[in-house]
Amino acid sequence: MSRVAIAGAAGRMGRILIEASQMAEGVSVGAATERSGSELLGLDVGNLVGVGALGVKLVDDLAAVVDDFDVLIDFTSPAVTMANLEICREAGKRVVIGTTGLDDEQKQKIAEAGEQVAVVFAPNMSVGVNLSFKLLEIAAQVLGDDVDIEIVEAHHRHKVDAPSGTALRMGEVVADALGRDLKECAVYGREGITGERERKTIGFETIRAGDIVGEHTVLFAALGERLEITHKASSRMTFAKGAVRAAGWVMQHSQGEFDMQDVLGLAE
Amino acid sequence: MSRVAIAGAAGRMGRILIEASQMAEGVSVGAATERSGSELLGLDVGNLVGVGALGVKLVDDLAAVVDDFDVLIDFTSPAVTMANLEICREAGKRVVIGTTGLDDEQKQKIAEAGEQVAVVFAPNMSVGVNLSFKLLEIAAQVLGDDVDIEIVEAHHRHKVDAPSGTALRMGEVVADALGRDLKECAVYGREGITGERERKTIGFETIRAGDIVGEHTVLFAALGERLEITHKASSRMTFAKGAVRAAGWVMQHSQGEFDMQDVLGLAE
Amino acid sequence: MSRVAIAGAAGRMGRILIEASQMAEGVSVGAATERSGSELLGLDVGNLVGVGALGVKLVDDLAAVVDDFDVLIDFTSPAVTMANLEICREAGKRVVIGTTGLDDEQKQKIAEAGEQVAVVFAPNMSVGVNLSFKLLEIAAQVLGDDVDIEIVEAHHRHKVDAPSGTALRMGEVVADALGRDLKECAVYGREGITGERERKTIGFETIRAGDIVGEHTVLFAALGERLEITHKASSRMTFAKGAVRAAGWVMQHSQGEFDMQDVLGLAE
Amino acid sequence: MSRVAIAGAAGRMGRILIEASQMAEGVSVGAATERSGSELLGLDVGNLVGVGALGVKLVDDLAAVVDDFDVLIDFTSPAVTMANLEICREAGKRVVIGTTGLDDEQKQKIAEAGEQVAVVFAPNMSVGVNLSFKLLEIAAQVLGDDVDIEIVEAHHRHKVDAPSGTALRMGEVVADALGRDLKECAVYGREGITGERERKTIGFETIRAGDIVGEHTVLFAALGERLEITHKASSRMTFAKGAVRAAGWVMQHSQGEFDMQDVLGLAE
Repeated sequence: MSRVAIAGAAGRMGRILIEASQMAEGVSVGAATERSGSELLGLDVGNLVGVGALGVKLVDDLAAVVDDFDVLIDFTSPAVTMANLEICREAGKRVVIGTTGLDDEQKQKIAEAGEQVAVVFAPNMSVGVNLSFKLLEIAAQVLGDDVDIEIVEAHHRHKVDAPSGTALRMGEVVADALGRDLKECAVYGREGITGERERKTIGFETIRAGDIVGEHTVLFAALGERLEITHKASSRMTFAKGAVRAAGWVMQHSQGEFDMQDVLGLAE
Repeated sequence: MSRVAIAGAAGRMGRILIEASQMAEGVSVGAATERSGSELLGLDVGNLVGVGALGVKLVDDLAAVVDDFDVLIDFTSPAVTMANLEICREAGKRVVIGTTGLDDEQKQKIAEAGEQVAVVFAPNMSVGVNLSFKLLEIAAQVLGDDVDIEIVEAHHRHKVDAPSGTALRMGEVVADALGRDLKECAVYGREGITGERERKTIGFETIRAGDIVGEHTVLFAALGERLEITHKASSRMTFAKGAVRAAGWVMQHSQGEFDMQDVLGLAE
Repeated sequence: MSRVAIAGAAGRMGRILIEASQMAEGVSVGAATERSGSELLGLDVGNLVGVGALGVKLVDDLAAVVDDFDVLIDFTSPAVTMANLEICREAGKRVVIGTTGLDDEQKQKIAEAGEQVAVVFAPNMSVGVNLSFKLLEIAAQVLGDDVDIEIVEAHHRHKVDAPSGTALRMGEVVADALGRDLKECAVYGREGITGERERKTIGFETIRAGDIVGEHTVLFAALGERLEITHKASSRMTFAKGAVRAAGWVMQHSQGEFDMQDVLGLAE
Repeated sequence: MSRVAIAGAAGRMGRILIEASQMAEGVSVGAATERSGSELLGLDVGNLVGVGALGVKLVDDLAAVVDDFDVLIDFTSPAVTMANLEICREAGKRVVIGTTGLDDEQKQKIAEAGEQVAVVFAPNMSVGVNLSFKLLEIAAQVLGDDVDIEIVEAHHRHKVDAPSGTALRMGEVVADALGRDLKECAVYGREGITGERERKTIGFETIRAGDIVGEHTVLFAALGERLEITHKASSRMTFAKGAVRAAGWVMQHSQGEFDMQDVLGLAE
């Protein structure tokens, strides 16, 4: 049994981590934190989230509940994550970090913490996305230069960059498998008289619309057939589920830094 | 019963027109032409196409078989179409024209022929595409500025322009319904830091891959829901079927120039 | 400006109605209720939902806040809805009802209330779904018996009935347009030696998987082309948005019973 | 360079094999046969197919042109295939067989021929389908019992059995990877009050419509995310391309019986 603490449990991602932890076999919620001053401190986090009482009160001090959990799951902000990491390192607690926007110094601190406790750190904790990378590699190797490759992604209207980091990573996986350089072969839009398609390009089509959480399709098209590998995230639950899977998996390690390929058994 | 003649019957499109005509209720193949000098002249066109003997020999002179048909279906080239149109006008035969690349003078000749015989002329004879235009108009009117609109199209690797004429026409239909000017609101690609999506833009995503005949999806995305209207052409049969439907429909008219909106009863 | 009250505001649907109301132009949250005894009473509903303080406290008595709103939006349970309806009828407040499971007597009460105040009542408040019904009707009329029609729907693993009510309604719309009786032409599964497809059947394919909120595709397939009309609900937000649209629309009426076809201007 | 002979070259599949062979690098058309009595014997097969003269006349006797090819590609009928196999075995020619409907005795003859010449024999020669089997195996292993699995397939209206052999094979691959017995866990339709989905079932949804050549999607749905692996055959060209790839690959072997997993390097 892995008892987890959820950092920032009253925020959007924190609430979903509570739900995901409660649903998972072999995982239970042992503690939950929120920033000082929140009107919600002291409430039962289960009631707060709407899944029924869990017997865990929302507190503002992780150190005060350090005996109530085995693994911290942290998707907060870089500064909060670093402070929590230090508390866990000292108390010998494992940590799963999904926080984004960390700088090199902060990543270095995570690596150092990994020398004393087990840490899983990944920019995208989705099981499906990490699995897709492996499937894309195999597909590209078998299909080779006999197909045209296009990557279609869709995200919500508030996303400010294009294509998504995940789409670009998919492009790199495919390009690497085919011995191409993504920087040289990527095409980001088509308009006017483009001429016939060049086989070795990789096309990106970026859709921005509504509240789409995140969808990626890689299309391999030969004559007479198409293979498509599609991942659709429908809620932040996908990241929460991956984090909770990592929190269960990491119990078998007492130290070391890991990523989702390790968690899924796909690392080579 | 509408007896059709197929021009260019040994070519790619001609062969499919033979098949479509043979399948349609109320339509039969009465004549079939091919260019002079073809090794295939004199063969039964049914055997040639692989659907069994039809009792119609491939000939090189439309005028010689003018008593054997009621409506000519012509998807050949501008020069051949113009010559055939003249033969039909003189003989009082109806004509369905799907030939592309006609210049203004040639289009004028078609309009003049329409004063004596009934002519159906359309750049895209697909029933589904023409129906889609109507559905898109209604959807845009109901959904208004509450949705983000994106148009995704996919065609084969040999297509030299982007987006497709059909995708652009779909964009015009939607823009017109919303009081926007497509030239000002169209976005043809996204790369780098784009900022949040502006509501009144219309995005186009153009896929070029394999031998995709032609696929178009218009996506209307609100918060919490999406409506998608998708048309997929899987073979030139879609154009052949539309032409044969037009050949049946046009029997009720003895003169006039018509398009597919007329044939489908969607003209206002 | 339409000031809305949200019934059951601390429940799953209530929380989303708060969000949708706050986002909509011309609509503001004026009141919010929850059952007596809830630990959450007295909290600011904006804080509760996580969108920031709105200055509206959660209360357990709708009558006590009757001056604070123009339209009640109610997605609770039949008994609660009936009690709230009576309060609104007496106070001359408009009502938007999305509650399901009402019996005939309760529906009769709604109709009677409509003689005094304006009521919008619909089993599915999604704008996109209601629009789809109209598009399907037109498509079926144009395509006629020249296409095969299949309806594919997908919902989450907890749904206990199949196909969905919305899928069946789509089937009825299409069958009516074609002069067929859905009871006689519906096919709900295919296994073994089925023989060739009969043209006038309408096939249903029901997917149950994961946490899919609700997806419906109606496929019209001819030779050489397909038309697909797809609706995807990604969150309960789609129903909330429709309800809020209804709450704005209903301000122009002081009495009468309406449905979403009225709200969207698609009623004939 | 692999010189191929195409059996049944004037039939639907034969014509496409001619096209596929002509397009492939390292492969050329050396011979082409058709049944005795065909009106088309003696024609240049390139002209017949519409790709321009190839200098290869259609003949009715494979033995007479045995010096003109290295590998026979045969998608005809069991009886014709067996006769051709015997000619090739005696002449020491390799054979690629895509013929379906062979009985056990005929399959035994193929195995015996493999002791003298190299033979590739597969019921479905599509590269994409065979690759999909591998991807499905890996996906099922990683996702385990944490997902719901559904297999959606679509074929043309003339197909008389359901689900397709390929869909069932995909189900077996997934069931094997998860230690399930497909016979016990397959669900072929849902109607009425079904109750909640049982996790370990595998659902099949079978679409029959229009002229769809063959589409298969395997859906793995967890909470918050979906992974979909989709294969779409758009023409018999997919089988022709796979056969021609096999015809090139088999040149490196002088004897043995192989399948498409061997050709693609995915056999374990």
